[in-house]
Amino acid sequence: MKDLIIFIFKDCSNGCSVPFAGDSGPQVAETFRAKDLIITPATVLKEKPDPDTLVFGASFTDHMLTVEWSLASGWEKPHIKPFENLSIHPAASVLHYAVELFEGLKAFRGVDNKIRLFRPELNMNRMCRSALRATLPVFDKEELLECIRQLIQIDQEWVPYSTSASLYIRPTFIGTEPSLGVKKPSRALLFVVLSPVGPYFSSGTFKPVSLWANPKYVRAWKGGTGDCKMGGNYGASLLAQCEAMENGCQQVLWLYGKDDQITEVGTMNLFLYWINEDGEEELATPPLDGIILPGVTRQSILELAQQWGEFKVCERYLTMDDLTTALEGNRVKEMFGSGTACVVCPVSDILYKGQMLHIPTMENGPKLASRILGMLADIQHFGVRGGRIRSSWPSDMLQKNLRLAWAT
Amino acid sequence: MKDLIIFIFKDCSNGCSVPFAGDSGPQVAETFRAKDLIITPATVLKEKPDPDTLVFGASFTDHMLTVEWSLASGWEKPHIKPFENLSIHPAASVLHYAVELFEGLKAFRGVDNKIRLFRPELNMNRMCRSALRATLPVFDKEELLECIRQLIQIDQEWVPYSTSASLYIRPTFIGTEPSLGVKKPSRALLFVVLSPVGPYFSSGTFKPVSLWANPKYVRAWKGGTGDCKMGGNYGASLLAQCEAMENGCQQVLWLYGKDDQITEVGTMNLFLYWINEDGEEELATPPLDGIILPGVTRQSILELAQQWGEFKVCERYLTMDDLTTALEGNRVKEMFGSGTACVVCPVSDILYKGQMLHIPTMENGPKLASRILGMLADIQHFGVRGGRIRSSWPSDMLQKNLRLAWAT
Repeated sequence: MKDLIIFIFKDCSNGCSVPFAGDSGPQVAETFRAKDLIITPATVLKEKPDPDTLVFGASFTDHMLTVEWSLASGWEKPHIKPFENLSIHPAASVLHYAVELFEGLKAFRGVDNKIRLFRPELNMNRMCRSALRATLPVFDKEELLECIRQLIQIDQEWVPYSTSASLYIRPTFIGTEPSLGVKKPSRALLFVVLSPVGPYFSSGTFKPVSLWANPKYVRAWKGGTGDCKMGGNYGASLLAQCEAMENGCQQVLWLYGKDDQITEVGTMNLFLYWINEDGEEELATPPLDGIILPGVTRQSILELAQQWGEFKVCERYLTMDDLTTALEGNRVKEMFGSGTACVVCPVSDILYKGQMLHIPTMENGPKLASRILGMLADIQHFGVRGGRIRSSWPSDMLQKNLRLAWAT
Repeated sequence: MKDLIIFIFKDCSNGCSVPFAGDSGPQVAETFRAKDLIITPATVLKEKPDPDTLVFGASFTDHMLTVEWSLASGWEKPHIKPFENLSIHPAASVLHYAVELFEGLKAFRGVDNKIRLFRPELNMNRMCRSALRATLPVFDKEELLECIRQLIQIDQEWVPYSTSASLYIRPTFIGTEPSLGVKKPSRALLFVVLSPVGPYFSSGTFKPVSLWANPKYVRAWKGGTGDCKMGGNYGASLLAQCEAMENGCQQVLWLYGKDDQITEVGTMNLFLYWINEDGEEELATPPLDGIILPGVTRQSILELAQQWGEFKVCERYLTMDDLTTALEGNRVKEMFGSGTACVVCPVSDILYKGQMLHIPTMENGPKLASRILGMLADIQHFGVRGGRIRSSWPSDMLQKNLRLAWAT
């Protein structure tokens, strides 16, 4: 099987690893360095929650990582310190102008007791792309990843001893310019918090979701920020989510354009597994045309399915008309969202133009969704697929008991 | 002359004054009350800056207003306290999902030494509309305004003794939900800070701006949040602003749609004063169709010009084609932005499709822009127009030395 691992740490083609010089001459630190880490251990350790009762993102580990940046001084030394509230100026640009972005990835404790991150370099790349879009400074992605590794190392007992739970990692980057002018911030804070999370489907079996599809709210648009993980995309989505729930649905199916293109589901990418218009068995997801978030799970599913070579795998536009026609022709096999939290999340129903469309995902297994979930969970928790592990971590990191998982 | 004052405090038709019940039963406080204000005076007072050297939004007064809300307890008592950093949980929804909105208005010290706010009820209404869009709780707008009045009262010496400077008021409302789930926040913080600001045009005469008009970035779109003052609108705009400056322009002219509709300028509304296609003298601004921020200055200019009855006043679509055709026909008189910061800001040039289009705003006076600026400044700083003052403040507020100015 072809090696799928993509080593992109050294790839500067998107400009993200190019140091940010600032406007203040050569003394400015163009990136922070993991070797400069200041570590202040917590003196009181919190009690760890029961993995079975965890609410997503509600409990946090004992430590956090913070790195300050200013236009005048560049990057300060990174700091691992006790988890605590942030002290933020009331005029900080993050509070007024949403100069903010985040990432989400997970650390898994394998059956071999090794802790693994799943393709974290993809998150680091996306984080740098988001930073450029938000006019926040970039940094060396490997240095941030090494700082995160050391943070997890310190809080390693918080990585659940479970193959159904994990430690969610939330890198966040905010503008802290302490003045009200709408401008590129001259101060910023990068921080990382860790949160143990339970299984997304608590019963261990899939629970499909119903979707509210209404063009009243539009998640993202060409020329906007829908392809970056910036805060504004999410705050703008909450009202639609509330309206979906008022209409008896669980999540929003985001539509776009006059032809009601299907774009994303809630905060997830979307996949349709069907027999397409040409009678071909196809796994389809909307292309990265500027309004779709380039999800790590999305990319991994596309790569896995392409490897399998069993059906057509396609990034293409899908409209509500395409879907309803396919439903009438009994050509829809499965529809599911994909994301870091759930890996895959089956769709059972869509409320569209006053009609509830039933999607036969569960009736069809869901065979493909289960297969993808199983394979990714194996890679994440067991580190092996076909008896071997591939890792893009340097060997000294492996020795430090933390591995990157993307095995084939 | 017809009375233009709009009393909308008591108008509940947009649902904003309807108390937010929360999900926790009748004990929850549905609004905060100014009568419950807790006032903790600052023990050390800061030195007031020279009004002539003020940078917009960079210095703040001695006190701030904060009001906490939670789903469980409703609104807490409002608190006026020394200006200080906020203590914010690292998972707060404002930092990750841009659950945030703000307002901007000014207090002016008149020649009669009275302090006036300009149509603050319009800001309160818009703030409530933004809160609904952001899934933040609403509150009684009159109560917030009275709290702001008391805050200004305490910091009244910060209102510049100048008819060219003012005190900028920044109400802000943020989600402080301390968990990472993307959802309607169960905690929120409303706060108000005050910042003395100098004249927008420091020399006292207009300085026109050049604009970068490029459809590469789109500020707002139908189904989004462009008609609310939510943080996400602004963070997403910074990169375009940087690119405008890299292209030798000072601000962005935001375009929309395939026909390059002219929508806004930087963070301002836009006005075109011209001879329209039908040969009529017209003051035009794009309509409030969902992608335009309903500016208080915009509304005031429309109402004033309608009162004058000297030319057509119109909310209508304007495309770049309309503009270039009019420029060729020598039909453009003035183009200007409008906003709280500058009142009006003349436009001199637009870089569009590689060509710098000259707008003869300054050559034409700018007669209309000057007239509007003069009239609004008179109302704001002198409180009188035609020898009388009209106020929507209750009489006891007038006695307390703070007036609302919207005189005709």
